[in-house]
Amino acid sequence: VAGWCRTVQGVSRRAIKMGQSDPRKIVFSAKMGLALMLISLLIFLKEPFKQLSRYSVWAILTVVVVFEFSIGATLSKGFNRGLGTLSAGGLALGMAELSGLAGEWEEAVIVASIFIIGFIATYAKLYPTMKPYEYGFRVFLLTYCFIMVSGYRTREFVHTAVSRFLLIALGAGVGLGVNILIYPIWAGEDLHKLVAKNFMGVAKSLEGCVSTYLNCIEYERIPSKILTYQASDDPLYSGYRSAVESTSQEDALMGFAIWEPPHGRYKMLRYPWKNYVKVSGALRHCAFTVMALHGCVLSEIQAPAERRQVFSRELQRVGYEGAKVLCELGNKLKKMEKIGPIDILNEVHEAAEELQKKIDQKSYLLVNSESWEIGNRPKELAEIQDLLDLDDEENKFHEYKSLSEAVLDLRSFPGSQSWDDPVPAKSASLNTSPPDSNPSNLPVPPGKMFMKQISWPAGMTFKAHAEPQVEESNTYQNASQLSLATFTSLLIEFVARLQNLVDSFEELGETALFKEPVDLPEPL
Amino acid sequence: VAGWCRTVQGVSRRAIKMGQSDPRKIVFSAKMGLALMLISLLIFLKEPFKQLSRYSVWAILTVVVVFEFSIGATLSKGFNRGLGTLSAGGLALGMAELSGLAGEWEEAVIVASIFIIGFIATYAKLYPTMKPYEYGFRVFLLTYCFIMVSGYRTREFVHTAVSRFLLIALGAGVGLGVNILIYPIWAGEDLHKLVAKNFMGVAKSLEGCVSTYLNCIEYERIPSKILTYQASDDPLYSGYRSAVESTSQEDALMGFAIWEPPHGRYKMLRYPWKNYVKVSGALRHCAFTVMALHGCVLSEIQAPAERRQVFSRELQRVGYEGAKVLCELGNKLKKMEKIGPIDILNEVHEAAEELQKKIDQKSYLLVNSESWEIGNRPKELAEIQDLLDLDDEENKFHEYKSLSEAVLDLRSFPGSQSWDDPVPAKSASLNTSPPDSNPSNLPVPPGKMFMKQISWPAGMTFKAHAEPQVEESNTYQNASQLSLATFTSLLIEFVARLQNLVDSFEELGETALFKEPVDLPEPL
Repeated sequence: VAGWCRTVQGVSRRAIKMGQSDPRKIVFSAKMGLALMLISLLIFLKEPFKQLSRYSVWAILTVVVVFEFSIGATLSKGFNRGLGTLSAGGLALGMAELSGLAGEWEEAVIVASIFIIGFIATYAKLYPTMKPYEYGFRVFLLTYCFIMVSGYRTREFVHTAVSRFLLIALGAGVGLGVNILIYPIWAGEDLHKLVAKNFMGVAKSLEGCVSTYLNCIEYERIPSKILTYQASDDPLYSGYRSAVESTSQEDALMGFAIWEPPHGRYKMLRYPWKNYVKVSGALRHCAFTVMALHGCVLSEIQAPAERRQVFSRELQRVGYEGAKVLCELGNKLKKMEKIGPIDILNEVHEAAEELQKKIDQKSYLLVNSESWEIGNRPKELAEIQDLLDLDDEENKFHEYKSLSEAVLDLRSFPGSQSWDDPVPAKSASLNTSPPDSNPSNLPVPPGKMFMKQISWPAGMTFKAHAEPQVEESNTYQNASQLSLATFTSLLIEFVARLQNLVDSFEELGETALFKEPVDLPEPL
Repeated sequence: VAGWCRTVQGVSRRAIKMGQSDPRKIVFSAKMGLALMLISLLIFLKEPFKQLSRYSVWAILTVVVVFEFSIGATLSKGFNRGLGTLSAGGLALGMAELSGLAGEWEEAVIVASIFIIGFIATYAKLYPTMKPYEYGFRVFLLTYCFIMVSGYRTREFVHTAVSRFLLIALGAGVGLGVNILIYPIWAGEDLHKLVAKNFMGVAKSLEGCVSTYLNCIEYERIPSKILTYQASDDPLYSGYRSAVESTSQEDALMGFAIWEPPHGRYKMLRYPWKNYVKVSGALRHCAFTVMALHGCVLSEIQAPAERRQVFSRELQRVGYEGAKVLCELGNKLKKMEKIGPIDILNEVHEAAEELQKKIDQKSYLLVNSESWEIGNRPKELAEIQDLLDLDDEENKFHEYKSLSEAVLDLRSFPGSQSWDDPVPAKSASLNTSPPDSNPSNLPVPPGKMFMKQISWPAGMTFKAHAEPQVEESNTYQNASQLSLATFTSLLIEFVARLQNLVDSFEELGETALFKEPVDLPEPL
């Protein structure tokens, strides 16, 4: 008994939690109970319709089946049900007339017609473009068979068809009335919210990826859920994953939303729900670069921390500005505002250009010159990298406040160093040993690089034993340098893709008649 | 009339086409017709059951609703229906007894119970883990309301419940019998085929991306469907997209497959369908790098053709070997074979290592030295790049035959040049001008780079006008060099992720008892 009590407690706790997180679910359940109550009242209390109530099952069935969570889904199902019933009823009445003419072959004609109609309706249902009408075909089949069979038995084809139709209309009327008039739940509103949420998710992932990468936070062990693309709690991962995975949900919501009449903030016939899905698709196209950035974080071939710090300020800025643009677009979408005359991409483009210039100056850090067939570059050039100007960096990091909880404090990283700003050569090279001229002096111990679950060199060792150890470790060091180039280049690609996103957003703003932005963000 | 004829013609042509592409659809439709025919025969021809056939609607309803495309879906729906009916029937009979005790308040008790049961069942249905039983809850509600309402009217609670249950059992029996005994369609088989198809799709995309990149084939205009991640015919795109997008389809098929009894090649209780989905997830993790590679092809910032040709042979080989591994795994999955003692990744790792070594030697080609703050590298080093050894390359390309139609003939590219193999400096530098020391002499005219739809520098020109034009074009030239580094590094990342895929495949092979490979691929 105690165990049973605990189960009940657990279930009710979870039920209350679900209600708190989305109170619409409670309202919807109460609406469903109300609709069922009304239909039973109508059927079993009203004496004059006693005759009709023999077919009460149809009304109850209609309410149970048509009552969907959102208004759009309810209307679409109601339409399917109505169309299926009417067309099947008409066909069945015609067929009944025909089969009556067949005389003694009547049964055979009826059974054969059921087979043929069953075959055709099922086959048509399987055609891809008929998918939204799947339910209509089911109702069609059911109605046709029912009228043929029970009509034959009672010889009241017309009566069966009419009473069935009346009760379905009654059920649909009660169901639609309760669902639409009391606290309606709109699929369009859900779609709008989902797209806005995706913006925030991608922004969170982007900022988180950049900051994790710059802080050299590595996964102790990559969750196998990420490796097999299953849902996981990882904040960097879940942000873009939910944006990428929402395709089918968006399509379903859009399919319902187009059935909904103008309502609330969507005061427009033929509201362009399609454009919301399009904006979300353009966002997904951006999210794929964030996914690739996360791939750099996950990869076991990692750039040494020192080199990342060289580009740290610029990378940080691009990540911050990129996330800011996404958040701004998401907020504007929520508030249904146009972008307005300002160039929303201005700052992120500036940041990207700055990063690009930094690469121009320092691109020798992205590669390893040791094995160049054209000869190594002069020793003193390599030593420049060792200049530290920590103080300068410290001040600059304060500018970029985190937009989300996924971003960790950059300054807490103990080795946060930088060789930013050109400084005269040799000024500080006496104190420390140049890290990239000494492959065994890697900041991350080489063993740690291969600690991860996916370890591609593992399969290779059996043939590499003839080569000296140094050469192999060089190979990975070089790959590790490239990893930084990849991260940088993907970030620039992300910025490039933002233009496309802004274009789709503007198209949405035009077609959906978004309002002009009220407050200018900054006085110029 | 002529127009109507044409419509009929068009519809029937499409219907025939659908039947040819998947004959199972015809068989399924015929089965559906047969089941409906059988149930009508049983109901309206058998005189002894005349009494029962008043409730014929239940049998027909059950057949229409339970008859699903695959066996797993049919069994799962049948189970839901059975469970819902039985539990609702039991509850309704109990409630009827209770309401009888209430005396004059009987109607009130019945109506209130309908509201409460409706509320609880709907609320429980909305709980996420209850999703697979959604249909069961609907049936539960329907049955409960129907028995309460019609039982009250006729005072035959038990009779209503029993006859309803008998007819549902009859309908379910006919539906399941026809669906399982005649040409069964298994969801597990579909899942198996889908996963194998995804392997081929990703392999095709990978090879196509590498070859398109090396041939410098650019999109005249990127299809807006790709930019908003909608389905498109593009062969490079559709291959990985279908693998990435099949998540929900796989989950649905797995949900049905676990209901299916052992059959055909899957002779095992509790067959590990979950592992198929896991392998597919690991494949998806690889597909994301292919997606990023395709992003390099789509990007408007492109590396000059000459530089790509330097790494052409190695990139081509990695792409070819990677696609070969995927195809091999796909075929082994199809044939349900284990990987066996051979190391399937051996060759692709060798190819990746070769590429890595090439990068070691030539990584100066991945960056632009012009703006280095440490000074430009010596002129004569830059000129080495201009050595051409076309003849050598021509012979090597024959080794890599295309695995799919998406790969274009590499040799047809007019500018297919290469500076492979270290050659003594200055031997050929007199004939041609060094391309990277002269920014205006780009192989791709700079105008062409910005031709595409997504053009991020466009938004920047209004503020860059003060700077000399040369500097800006330098910036993009440098970015374009990095694009090659990104492509290379992503390809290496792809190879690294293959290990994880092979691991999940081996796990599947173990749990699903795949057979040992019969023929060793090569005599050692």
